[in-house]
Amino acid sequence: MHQRSTPHPVASAPVTVIVGGVAGGMSAATRLRRLDEDREIIVLERSGAVSFANCGLPYHVSGVIADRASLELQDPARLAARFRIDARVRSEVVAIDRAARRVTVRPADGVEYELGYDELVLSPGAAPRLPDHVAPDAPIHALRTLDDLDAIMASLDRLPAGARAVVIGGGYIGVEVADNLHRRGLATTIVQRSSRLIGGLDPEMAAPLADHVLERGVALRFGSAVTAVEAHRVVLDDGTALPADLVIAAMGVVPESGLARAAGLEIGATGGIVVDATHRTSDPAIYAVGDAAEKRDRADGSARLVALAGLANRHGRAVADAIAGRPSTAAPALGTAVIDVLGLTAASTGWSEEVARARGVEVRVIHSHPLSHAGYFPGARPMSLKLVVDARTDRILGAQAVGTEGVARRIDVIATAMAADLAASALADLELAYAPQYGSAKDPVNMLGYIARNLAEGEDATIQWHELDDALAGGAVLLDVRAAGQLAEGTIPGATWIPVEQLRDRAPEFAGRPIVVHCRVGQGAHTGARLLAALGHDVVNLDGGYLTWRDGMRARAHEHAMDAATAELRAA
Amino acid sequence: MHQRSTPHPVASAPVTVIVGGVAGGMSAATRLRRLDEDREIIVLERSGAVSFANCGLPYHVSGVIADRASLELQDPARLAARFRIDARVRSEVVAIDRAARRVTVRPADGVEYELGYDELVLSPGAAPRLPDHVAPDAPIHALRTLDDLDAIMASLDRLPAGARAVVIGGGYIGVEVADNLHRRGLATTIVQRSSRLIGGLDPEMAAPLADHVLERGVALRFGSAVTAVEAHRVVLDDGTALPADLVIAAMGVVPESGLARAAGLEIGATGGIVVDATHRTSDPAIYAVGDAAEKRDRADGSARLVALAGLANRHGRAVADAIAGRPSTAAPALGTAVIDVLGLTAASTGWSEEVARARGVEVRVIHSHPLSHAGYFPGARPMSLKLVVDARTDRILGAQAVGTEGVARRIDVIATAMAADLAASALADLELAYAPQYGSAKDPVNMLGYIARNLAEGEDATIQWHELDDALAGGAVLLDVRAAGQLAEGTIPGATWIPVEQLRDRAPEFAGRPIVVHCRVGQGAHTGARLLAALGHDVVNLDGGYLTWRDGMRARAHEHAMDAATAELRAA
Repeated sequence: MHQRSTPHPVASAPVTVIVGGVAGGMSAATRLRRLDEDREIIVLERSGAVSFANCGLPYHVSGVIADRASLELQDPARLAARFRIDARVRSEVVAIDRAARRVTVRPADGVEYELGYDELVLSPGAAPRLPDHVAPDAPIHALRTLDDLDAIMASLDRLPAGARAVVIGGGYIGVEVADNLHRRGLATTIVQRSSRLIGGLDPEMAAPLADHVLERGVALRFGSAVTAVEAHRVVLDDGTALPADLVIAAMGVVPESGLARAAGLEIGATGGIVVDATHRTSDPAIYAVGDAAEKRDRADGSARLVALAGLANRHGRAVADAIAGRPSTAAPALGTAVIDVLGLTAASTGWSEEVARARGVEVRVIHSHPLSHAGYFPGARPMSLKLVVDARTDRILGAQAVGTEGVARRIDVIATAMAADLAASALADLELAYAPQYGSAKDPVNMLGYIARNLAEGEDATIQWHELDDALAGGAVLLDVRAAGQLAEGTIPGATWIPVEQLRDRAPEFAGRPIVVHCRVGQGAHTGARLLAALGHDVVNLDGGYLTWRDGMRARAHEHAMDAATAELRAA
Repeated sequence: MHQRSTPHPVASAPVTVIVGGVAGGMSAATRLRRLDEDREIIVLERSGAVSFANCGLPYHVSGVIADRASLELQDPARLAARFRIDARVRSEVVAIDRAARRVTVRPADGVEYELGYDELVLSPGAAPRLPDHVAPDAPIHALRTLDDLDAIMASLDRLPAGARAVVIGGGYIGVEVADNLHRRGLATTIVQRSSRLIGGLDPEMAAPLADHVLERGVALRFGSAVTAVEAHRVVLDDGTALPADLVIAAMGVVPESGLARAAGLEIGATGGIVVDATHRTSDPAIYAVGDAAEKRDRADGSARLVALAGLANRHGRAVADAIAGRPSTAAPALGTAVIDVLGLTAASTGWSEEVARARGVEVRVIHSHPLSHAGYFPGARPMSLKLVVDARTDRILGAQAVGTEGVARRIDVIATAMAADLAASALADLELAYAPQYGSAKDPVNMLGYIARNLAEGEDATIQWHELDDALAGGAVLLDVRAAGQLAEGTIPGATWIPVEQLRDRAPEFAGRPIVVHCRVGQGAHTGARLLAALGHDVVNLDGGYLTWRDGMRARAHEHAMDAATAELRAA
């Protein structure tokens, strides 16, 4: 009944056509109905389902989410009954006639038709990258839609438990899929171009993830690119071939901006559709949201792509507000994300140290290794935190966390502080919920603030793990001030051990030499550094202590493995 | 060696004397040493231990924290070796001679001595309130110090597992102690003056806690005051007597401001020591922090008492900064807190609705009942959230949460937003860490922001559970728009059931009558209310839906139980 072959008559209600019926598109549709009971709202979805739980798809592979039906959050019948939304699946929009305000729709039966619109919302998402050479009989899949999932499940049903899977790509999706293939019993290998998992993490934060994955029995192949996928194997750029009964392409995504490009809409250097602060494209009747549209980076306002469901939902809603004539602006994007990898959690928000340095920002970097809650209460778990701060302004640029309990919570607090433009030093004053089973009276986030304030006020000076070699080459002495019981964890070559309690007496031994002081996590060394500075020494603290240094060395080991002829890291 | 009978000679290092060696005092001492290597720092602690984990004490009662030694975080020997701090236990300061800058110390041997100071820091904490009439042989204890804990443990060792315990007071400490006595096997009763546990929670948020405690087998006696504690029983104001082998006084605390008062320092109407923004008392050489000192309320700047470890630590550190001549200001207090009660978690920050209304603020109140993470991922747990907003400004005044997983996290995010003066509507735009096992693409905090924005922009109008009776008495019709499967949870008397999908057709039946629409949690009813408003109806949404109304009715049941002759709620 809503199909039209000409623009709608003037007398009828306005028509909003939405291309793509998942996060951004469906948020726009339902919000628009709540704002406007009369409007015609038509959602055109290329795949077989609208509003499915795309973030849950990997977990059906292993059976962690056992019921496939639970992944379908809405269906067209329910959307029609509840929201009077006309949602059409297996309906691809193949052309936009901007002058006539019409789209051409190709439904499942192939008989194309046209639909007029008053406003068009593009939320087509992103397409998975694929290797260059894929044989027709290669067992390769992406995992973006329920259709993809169904195809993978059908393949898996034909494979024995010990079958071999290769996941191309070690980003969020690749790691999640590998996790679930491993849980299902497949011998799983991740092939990754770089020497680390999860691109948003700096090397020393990512290294423990790789080691964890290896310990759990997933193989990693760092520093390898896939040149071809064949029927039973994946060929790498060094000529080796990995046997593979199932291959998952998780090499990242490219925005589905082809339709927009063909219609002459402005496309950015990122490949995403250019939008203004109200998500309007270069055609005022057309909006774009979700993975296909550019976002504005919170730190520097630059255009970037962020393929995250939260932003898609939020921006979809904002588009509905704009169409309904309400105030609407796009909050800039931090790109906050979290992942669970076989029981280890990693989360990040904003810029990594690597990104900040690449953009020429002078940064202060802080590592800490707190417990998730008070150490005297049973069950406290270690975590590693990293804060990246603009050294000129004390502005928080980003944060990373790896651990288990409480990781997402700390990143959420810092993301909130960033959204509100709180300075790094101001983290010290946050009043966070504390009971001994839930945190510490000085929460890990407060501690980051204290350290940031000490650095900002020049009370402490630190160097990073990757700066230590240069400092020692320059003649500095390295003092390890840990307690005796902490040495078994390992030592940094060349360090002299002097427990902090003996520093007052032994400091004269190092008169005239610059000193790098380190402890396990940085806190005892701060006390030591303050003492040495008071005694007149030139002293810096090794940020994050032995633990951060150790993680940095792990990252280097992965790089070396990548560079070596045998680039493969085998699970133990 | 540090004992002086006269003010110290001018030539020596300045002397800072700190009264009280736990959270605030010890934070001041260690920070001050890091800032000043030369200063003499003397800490005088009345009890037998410094820097003990007072928040952990209740958990040793049950054995959850098995090792008593783990509760002693520092000891005088370690403080001397590491920080050159002279910490003296069993040393009570009994007088301050402000003119001479001397304190009189009474050590364990009773032989008093004097100590001169350049700066004096008062961090004596707070004293437990006790019932008016306590027999000399009454088995009553407070739980503030390790000494208290040792006395309780000694009593418990003499009691059989089925012995009867009475906890006087149902605030944070009372509930934690009752939890742990119950875990240890004692038949435990909480006696509480009011009809709810945890004063910072509004009635409908607190009611599920009381029901949970009852279900787990702890008895509650609401609306009762203790008139006397005798050798084997606790006598209540209605004349009944509860048999008691052990009695814990957890009736709240009063600031230990007696020493300051005797010295002529200004004491506020709260009973706490008056301090300025740098924690300085009315004597510029004397600072005060912790439970004994007044805090400044974040919402309105008024003086208040907040007995929380986090603030004590933070302010202790700030005092050290002030003494060392560094910039130092006291961030105002929100009073963020969290508690675990036999497996249920409750947390709050800022003002309750009750406090806000009592102070004459026009509030917008929002209840929600989200899942801790995506419903399609296993293990999602329900929680209840409440946001209290200043209706004139959209400013967040406070928040409360009850549930399990993710409760502290959401309160932390809101507390951070409050510290940064983010408006309630701005919660919608926060980018929080999302993966299906950690949250929802629209996080519960985002949803509070959406609701706040809808209310602020007049898009939705709500009434509270306690306003429903008046609305119905005024002639409104109550429409229940839940799905059929949700009705088994219970219904609100007088409601007409019309699933939201049928509202469009059946709305004319209610022409001319004001409508209150409700669903399970408020979201479907929002869709329904928007629809009815678009059709011309005068409609409001019952905030928080059936679940908040049910919790409100539970709170009323507790009030009625309190009013009834038999005020005792017995565990099942």
